[in-house]
Amino acid sequence: MTARVLVVDDVLHNVKLLEAKLRSEYFDVLTAMNGMDALETIEQEKPDIILLDVMMPGMDGFEVCRRVKSNPAVAHIPIIMVTALDQPKDRVMGLEAGADDFLTKPIQDLPLFARVRSLVRLKVLMDELRIRNSTGQAFSAGGEGQSSAAISLEGADVLLIEDYERVANRITGYLQETVGSIDIDGVAGGDLSTEDLGKYDLFIISLSLREVDGLRLCSSIRSSEATRHTPILVIIDEGDHDTLIQAMDLGVTDYVTRPIDGNELVARVKSQIRHKRYADYLRGKMQQNMQMAVTDAVTNLYNRHFLDTHLENVFSSSNEKQANLSMLMLDIDHFKKVNDTYGHTSGDEVLEEFSKRITGNIRSIDLAARYGGEEFIVVMPETDSEFALFIAERLRRTISDEPFVISGSDTPIDVTVSIGVSIVSEGCDTKEKLFSEADKGLYRAKESGRNRVCGITCFDDEKAS
Amino acid sequence: MTARVLVVDDVLHNVKLLEAKLRSEYFDVLTAMNGMDALETIEQEKPDIILLDVMMPGMDGFEVCRRVKSNPAVAHIPIIMVTALDQPKDRVMGLEAGADDFLTKPIQDLPLFARVRSLVRLKVLMDELRIRNSTGQAFSAGGEGQSSAAISLEGADVLLIEDYERVANRITGYLQETVGSIDIDGVAGGDLSTEDLGKYDLFIISLSLREVDGLRLCSSIRSSEATRHTPILVIIDEGDHDTLIQAMDLGVTDYVTRPIDGNELVARVKSQIRHKRYADYLRGKMQQNMQMAVTDAVTNLYNRHFLDTHLENVFSSSNEKQANLSMLMLDIDHFKKVNDTYGHTSGDEVLEEFSKRITGNIRSIDLAARYGGEEFIVVMPETDSEFALFIAERLRRTISDEPFVISGSDTPIDVTVSIGVSIVSEGCDTKEKLFSEADKGLYRAKESGRNRVCGITCFDDEKAS
Repeated sequence: MTARVLVVDDVLHNVKLLEAKLRSEYFDVLTAMNGMDALETIEQEKPDIILLDVMMPGMDGFEVCRRVKSNPAVAHIPIIMVTALDQPKDRVMGLEAGADDFLTKPIQDLPLFARVRSLVRLKVLMDELRIRNSTGQAFSAGGEGQSSAAISLEGADVLLIEDYERVANRITGYLQETVGSIDIDGVAGGDLSTEDLGKYDLFIISLSLREVDGLRLCSSIRSSEATRHTPILVIIDEGDHDTLIQAMDLGVTDYVTRPIDGNELVARVKSQIRHKRYADYLRGKMQQNMQMAVTDAVTNLYNRHFLDTHLENVFSSSNEKQANLSMLMLDIDHFKKVNDTYGHTSGDEVLEEFSKRITGNIRSIDLAARYGGEEFIVVMPETDSEFALFIAERLRRTISDEPFVISGSDTPIDVTVSIGVSIVSEGCDTKEKLFSEADKGLYRAKESGRNRVCGITCFDDEKAS
Repeated sequence: MTARVLVVDDVLHNVKLLEAKLRSEYFDVLTAMNGMDALETIEQEKPDIILLDVMMPGMDGFEVCRRVKSNPAVAHIPIIMVTALDQPKDRVMGLEAGADDFLTKPIQDLPLFARVRSLVRLKVLMDELRIRNSTGQAFSAGGEGQSSAAISLEGADVLLIEDYERVANRITGYLQETVGSIDIDGVAGGDLSTEDLGKYDLFIISLSLREVDGLRLCSSIRSSEATRHTPILVIIDEGDHDTLIQAMDLGVTDYVTRPIDGNELVARVKSQIRHKRYADYLRGKMQQNMQMAVTDAVTNLYNRHFLDTHLENVFSSSNEKQANLSMLMLDIDHFKKVNDTYGHTSGDEVLEEFSKRITGNIRSIDLAARYGGEEFIVVMPETDSEFALFIAERLRRTISDEPFVISGSDTPIDVTVSIGVSIVSEGCDTKEKLFSEADKGLYRAKESGRNRVCGITCFDDEKAS
């Protein structure tokens, strides 16, 4: 995958060199020779990746990085810090400033392309999750919320796959303060003995395992739904370019070479875990927004919008299977009185408790939705009229048998519900008909004294308020 | 990127051969030797890609494909049909059955891996968009809606980059009945003369252009935000493996070799456009859901949930800049009377019209939200008390000056609003304080006769209902 890369360095020769390397691999390249120019280009051009030199006169790379990462409009753009080989502390400082990866000078082709490609791959996925609103601003229902830099690394779970005990112990030592737990798997007999791979934040996999091909493990981790997006950091022999290229092709996220530099390992582990958790955070947010879009805030039942589309689906699948389909339309009797007497907050409590009782008394294949203020719909697939009436009657009693305890009143209050029932049948074979038949039933229930179920036949169980 | 591939073929030798090829490139491989087994494996294992032989005894590949594509649980899994070289019609039939790509026997390594990888890349992105609900079922607020197979290809726009006029004309001829329009760009002087690349559904790019490196064009199309996800189909010389590998690395989506087979070109173009449009559809759906999650359905203003998180952001950014921040709390006077007199539908109409008047009279940096039944909030950044009171007073008059026309009443009805104003200042420096001060203002406005603005000072403009 190609990308637009911004190269920032104050030395013209370095800029030209990187530009040529990247262009030879068909990357689009932008350049900047100082921090201020870089910030301007970043804001205007929104590159996909920034290659940022640390040592620059005036504003140094750390400061540029910090500013990018604190600007919501561009904070999502991955930054690779370019540090001097003899300044291992710079890597840690870079990560603290919010950098996503780092390369050491002199920059070699393979690490350069491997790291750039890995971050581009990540960015393309993240961009899908960072849905934009109509004005082009990044937006999520929960506000822009956290940036990737603010993600906590606490309690991270790492699985280390390494069958040399001494190496495993050394790695554990390096990472002790960084991660929450490290499980070690020695891959006995070619199989991972670890179950529940989905719980890990990171896999560290040696590619010099004695019994199995580490790349094969990487592949199976990448191929499984539960671990598809979990970062994999491989340990590779210095100079083993073929394996590195294969690993990156498989979707391995990062690598370190032997002999392992503890500082570098820690820095890379932190960065990978942070990326993973940020992606999880965005996915969770998205999920939450999707859920909110179909849910009524007061009752947590599905909302009318969802009911409409859901009913469409249920209707056609019932038609296909020639199965029964019933609908209940429920309306809380004299609900306005509750609001007027006890206030809106208490009214909401009644709606909430009402909804709980309803959902507690229907099957998992049934769907309950709030249709309007105090009006509810229950859709029951594969349900004939007899059973629908039976359920409706049970719901009616569930409401009337036990008064509602609310915070606005010392004594529990009596609540009753009227219910109209309809069923798909000859002459009632559209969604609209199903609604209007249920509505007619509800009307009859209200007319004949409330707190009752009416539909195909009328239940006259109790006289109500 | 690796993946789990299901190989379906009734000839054991073919299965073994494909399995070995794929495993050598570290793919996870599942196998099935007839249609029924394949369907079962697909349902249970949910592979990433299906390589499906057409000619099988019993249920043939087309039927398997049709069944997969009509089962919502697995319809999203890409299918590559494996057809005989001498049956070009099979490609068209495969696409009609819903296949996503095809390969001809004998299967060669490079096409195999190129096609599998391209589809895996697409699937990973699509999976991000196909957010799942808690029970693991694919779901979207608008119902599962369309499947990729149901996507219309009508009116597709294609940009063909080919500087040999004869070839361009031949391609145009092939595609005439498939696409809506084909623009041809000859890349004079090395630059595309076409603007607005974002509007195209597909780019077809010759990699034998005379003046420019076609791969460079592919790269710049891939690197630009507007065309990042637009499919690119390249035309490549038979046997030019190096260019093909480079092209696929850049993120080119598909290819045909010269001499171009018209049938194959049409089939591939259709398939690519369908993928593109399906992805656009999913993105649009997601966007729509996000929008719904933050919007009040009746008034189209932001909802309370969004207000809460938005206010958090505005608050901290105002603090940072030490800028002013004002809040108006609006409550429609005697709104219950409207509902009681004219019914809920008319009530909703009033809310709608009210909201329109409010949004028409605030600035684009202000944010209006429905806070509760008939209560609204306007947040105004960089606004001092004088200006806030001025705007509040303007809003009050906007409502009271012109009676509301509603469908439930022959004569327009008078509506007024009471408004409380607060501003961030010493002693009012939290979100909660801002709310409670505005609420106090609103209370005073109601107490002193409604249809007025109260806050830092009290406006006594009119006596109201």
